[in-house]
Amino acid sequence: MNQVIYIMGVSGCGKSTIGNLLSEALKIPFFDGDDFHPEANVAKMSKGIPLNDEDRFGWLQTLNELGKKQVENNSCVIVCSGLKQMYRDILSKGIESKSMWVYLSGSFNQIEERVNKRSGHFMSSALLQSQFDTLEEPINALQLDISLKPEEIVKKIVKELDMKSEFGLFGLGVMGKSLSRNLAQKGFNISIFNREVKGSEENIAIDFKNAHSELEKSQPFSNVEAFVNSLQIPRRIMLMVNAGKITDMVIDDLIPYLSDGDILIDGGNSNYLKTKERYDYLKSKNINFIGVGVSGGEEGALKGPSIMPGGNKETYELVKPYLEGIAAKDTNGLPCCTYVGEEGSGHFVKMVHNGIEYVEMQLLAEVYTIFNTMGRNPDEIANILESWKSDVDSYLLGITVDILRKKDGDDWLVNKIVDKAGNKGTGNWTTIATAQLGAPSTLIASALFARYTSFYKEERCNANEKFGISPSELNLNSDDVLNAYQFGRIINHYQGLKLISEAGKAYSWTLNLSEIARIWTNGCIIKSDFAEALIPVLKEDDNILTNPSIISQLKELKPSINKVVAECILRELPVACLSESVNFLNAYTTSNSSANIIQAQRDYFGAHTYQRIDDLSGDFHHTNWN
Amino acid sequence: MNQVIYIMGVSGCGKSTIGNLLSEALKIPFFDGDDFHPEANVAKMSKGIPLNDEDRFGWLQTLNELGKKQVENNSCVIVCSGLKQMYRDILSKGIESKSMWVYLSGSFNQIEERVNKRSGHFMSSALLQSQFDTLEEPINALQLDISLKPEEIVKKIVKELDMKSEFGLFGLGVMGKSLSRNLAQKGFNISIFNREVKGSEENIAIDFKNAHSELEKSQPFSNVEAFVNSLQIPRRIMLMVNAGKITDMVIDDLIPYLSDGDILIDGGNSNYLKTKERYDYLKSKNINFIGVGVSGGEEGALKGPSIMPGGNKETYELVKPYLEGIAAKDTNGLPCCTYVGEEGSGHFVKMVHNGIEYVEMQLLAEVYTIFNTMGRNPDEIANILESWKSDVDSYLLGITVDILRKKDGDDWLVNKIVDKAGNKGTGNWTTIATAQLGAPSTLIASALFARYTSFYKEERCNANEKFGISPSELNLNSDDVLNAYQFGRIINHYQGLKLISEAGKAYSWTLNLSEIARIWTNGCIIKSDFAEALIPVLKEDDNILTNPSIISQLKELKPSINKVVAECILRELPVACLSESVNFLNAYTTSNSSANIIQAQRDYFGAHTYQRIDDLSGDFHHTNWN
Repeated sequence: MNQVIYIMGVSGCGKSTIGNLLSEALKIPFFDGDDFHPEANVAKMSKGIPLNDEDRFGWLQTLNELGKKQVENNSCVIVCSGLKQMYRDILSKGIESKSMWVYLSGSFNQIEERVNKRSGHFMSSALLQSQFDTLEEPINALQLDISLKPEEIVKKIVKELDMKSEFGLFGLGVMGKSLSRNLAQKGFNISIFNREVKGSEENIAIDFKNAHSELEKSQPFSNVEAFVNSLQIPRRIMLMVNAGKITDMVIDDLIPYLSDGDILIDGGNSNYLKTKERYDYLKSKNINFIGVGVSGGEEGALKGPSIMPGGNKETYELVKPYLEGIAAKDTNGLPCCTYVGEEGSGHFVKMVHNGIEYVEMQLLAEVYTIFNTMGRNPDEIANILESWKSDVDSYLLGITVDILRKKDGDDWLVNKIVDKAGNKGTGNWTTIATAQLGAPSTLIASALFARYTSFYKEERCNANEKFGISPSELNLNSDDVLNAYQFGRIINHYQGLKLISEAGKAYSWTLNLSEIARIWTNGCIIKSDFAEALIPVLKEDDNILTNPSIISQLKELKPSINKVVAECILRELPVACLSESVNFLNAYTTSNSSANIIQAQRDYFGAHTYQRIDDLSGDFHHTNWN
Repeated sequence: MNQVIYIMGVSGCGKSTIGNLLSEALKIPFFDGDDFHPEANVAKMSKGIPLNDEDRFGWLQTLNELGKKQVENNSCVIVCSGLKQMYRDILSKGIESKSMWVYLSGSFNQIEERVNKRSGHFMSSALLQSQFDTLEEPINALQLDISLKPEEIVKKIVKELDMKSEFGLFGLGVMGKSLSRNLAQKGFNISIFNREVKGSEENIAIDFKNAHSELEKSQPFSNVEAFVNSLQIPRRIMLMVNAGKITDMVIDDLIPYLSDGDILIDGGNSNYLKTKERYDYLKSKNINFIGVGVSGGEEGALKGPSIMPGGNKETYELVKPYLEGIAAKDTNGLPCCTYVGEEGSGHFVKMVHNGIEYVEMQLLAEVYTIFNTMGRNPDEIANILESWKSDVDSYLLGITVDILRKKDGDDWLVNKIVDKAGNKGTGNWTTIATAQLGAPSTLIASALFARYTSFYKEERCNANEKFGISPSELNLNSDDVLNAYQFGRIINHYQGLKLISEAGKAYSWTLNLSEIARIWTNGCIIKSDFAEALIPVLKEDDNILTNPSIISQLKELKPSINKVVAECILRELPVACLSESVNFLNAYTTSNSSANIIQAQRDYFGAHTYQRIDDLSGDFHHTNWN
């Protein structure tokens, strides 16, 4: 990766010398910041009048522009005293992650002596003192003592650039391995870490490196300290470990070796509330933390996942090139990775993504069960679903077609799979969030509960025998089923996005739902044509059910879903998600619901009071009912 | 309340003297424990051989039997050295809450001197020393110094009996007031407390006492210390304050004035996980804690609520007479209060009770909306519901009839009530518990979400306009609606009880579901004929869907609910709970569900593996699908 190497320090520390030597060593351009002062500044300085911040502002911007332009094609060295953090912020603005800071440090006496030795250079003690007074030492710079020989200093800088990795990946499970290869393929120099467990996890990192040519330049580790020390400062370490207690343990293992300003990136499926806790905990230790949702499974992680990062915006800028570099690309070539929002918002959005995924899967399962009950075999069902792709294409639809076609001996493989669905907790978390935030994602709950019910296999078999309920021949055509499926998907996306929007309000996150839909258009499990269609819709309103085109689609689909669900109910076929989607829209479009009865009941037995339609003050009333 | 007053202390402390005087003062029988020794013990003692614990065992049991028998009709005084806690446990076994312990204490020298003065009594120093060595000082006794004059000692005991209340009630909100009156009406001597807040809560306790004749003997307080000191030891204090942080604050306010072994009873709607935390916290301070679910609203609390206590079984025995005394009575005259189980189980059961209540209310609201859409006015609907009482009577059905008949001017009052349903968190908690425990109470979630959806009034009105969906004339008869309603209720009770049963397994609580159904037959909001019918059913199996009678009922009701739900779906009327109940049974009775598709999808994109029907080892398999 191209880099702007800024060499900073007080006047007389030897910046230009080092800058020139470094430029020669690396064969990259050298720029002396002083050459870029406007005339007014030069005149002022020659009169011995010190520059003020206003004088410096335009000049620093000029240098920033220079760096930005250079780094597009090549690395370069820029020398500039950069005494205040504010100056350095201007210099690296927009190229934060491509800026390397070298800080040449020495004591007042050291520098005064050195300046006095140099002929043709003038600087009063008072001026030098003012430089030291102004100096705010940088946190994330490579600090080098000027008492070293210039050649040694240059060697150290070159070594840092050559040897140190830009990015570290901690944990080489399925996802960690794929992301590592992805990073390496994009040309990033990475360090990779996996622990060593005798008998079960031996030589993981080194074996993995050796197995893949793109990892030739990567550095493998099984020692935490060595791994951390192999990274450029500020260190960027992405954790790909099992979410939960392991994450906390790993963080605590790393902390002793980290420096102020280093960045930990949690790429696991962590609970968003835990991410907020970890963010605060690490902040107290001056470590930056980014919680990142990564979707796409093993394949997506390798070829380009959808990435949902949350945390501090400035910290994000420092990891952006890596995350956006490895992300999938949308139809416009933009990365399917965007800054989501503050603290746990990235993991929240990933959690809801998974909730939507639960529903998309459940809807396909319900579609399958409908056609199956109608006597279609898996190949026939696959053909029907294949024909739907022009209308409602999605990654999950596509894999379901593949799945249904897979044979196992004389039979289809799906017929051999036990019908007990597992879950890894994110559907559960989304259902809990929906309950806690008061934003009803009823389909996600339904899909979760359908998995739970599937788990009671033995009870189900016993009940089947005792109740003697078995779905009879359904009278449906496949267009109606297609429409019902698409209807369910629209309600599902409405509810998921609404939940994200409500969380944004509850936690004061600034969210851009259109951008969230955009990064869901590729790389992730729920990528679909519909996500694509939602990008412009969500630019208008977070609530997609106010969009005229969505409304007319739903109105068109409604007769079909009514027919499909009613028929399934009459024929005793369970379709919890389809059913709930139609009930939800019916409730959502009811201006006068039956909740008045519930309010009356609550007031009757618990004196909970109620509001009256003829009292616009909103006051609460109580009645003695009996 | 009758009491056994045990007077204890080492030989020579003056137990008999005090016992006799007290017996005279109170005009109650006096028994000297020494008179009940079997001959063998007497012989041993007269030979100067000390008794061992085996010798004492039968004798202590005899005294315990004596106390038990006496206390049925009258209080009594029993004198017995009772030096070890183990002895005292035997003495008060089964009458823990009716036992009062008076401990006469003095130093070795005091007692030696007193014994030597008495003629006709012999005791060696060594024997006295062995008594002191054996003595384990009691925690929950009234301790009195033997240097006081006997008359003074007796006076103090009488004062304790006369003046000190048996039970304290902290917090005089709606429920606290009703429970206080209920306790007083049952003849318990109580202390009542309410804080004093200038301008908003002044003289609450004293005004409340003066307003109700049954509270004549109660003691009102607004000072915490005085309130605590007004109670007999061990103190029994029931907290009736707002659940949440207030409960913790109140507990911390009380702690400084409590003694080891005192008992706090939380009668608020606390979260069961918090109850477990508080139980542990108070245990560390040697305070006992009982978490009690109380249902029945204001009226139930006064006339007899249903009470669901959880905590330590031995502690429960000490509060049992009060809780069972004020509880509603079932059809056999037994209290609707029973020891539920360990730690948070009482509050868990109350939480699920409320979840079931949400569904019962929602089902009635859906029934209302069906008849309303069919053009029936509230009076006509009330008449239909009234006619259902012989089949499916319940408290909630009854109040709904009252509600529908209530007029407001020319109109029915229900027509004036805003259709935004509130909730106080227990439905939310139940939904969270159902997600966390993997036991799908889908109807509770549906009922909760229906309330949430009702809350989006403005969105609903806008959507109503834009979608133009309005339910059309339904073609249903009221018997089908009745059957559908009852079907929903059965599934609701199955799911709620299943959730309790799964929680019992997860938290290792020993629960008796039949008893839980029994205490729900009166006093509480969900009391119903169906709860009554469940008592014998749950004696057979925690899962009511294995019961032949329930199965045949559901089979009989099934065609009706199929018809009602299908019709509502076709006519675009939202009936989320009815709909979910039929989908649930359809899923529950499916031996081969579509979860195989979900397992295949999960394996496809995430390598989550699956089990095969032809591999009974249960091993997990993975396929490369594409």
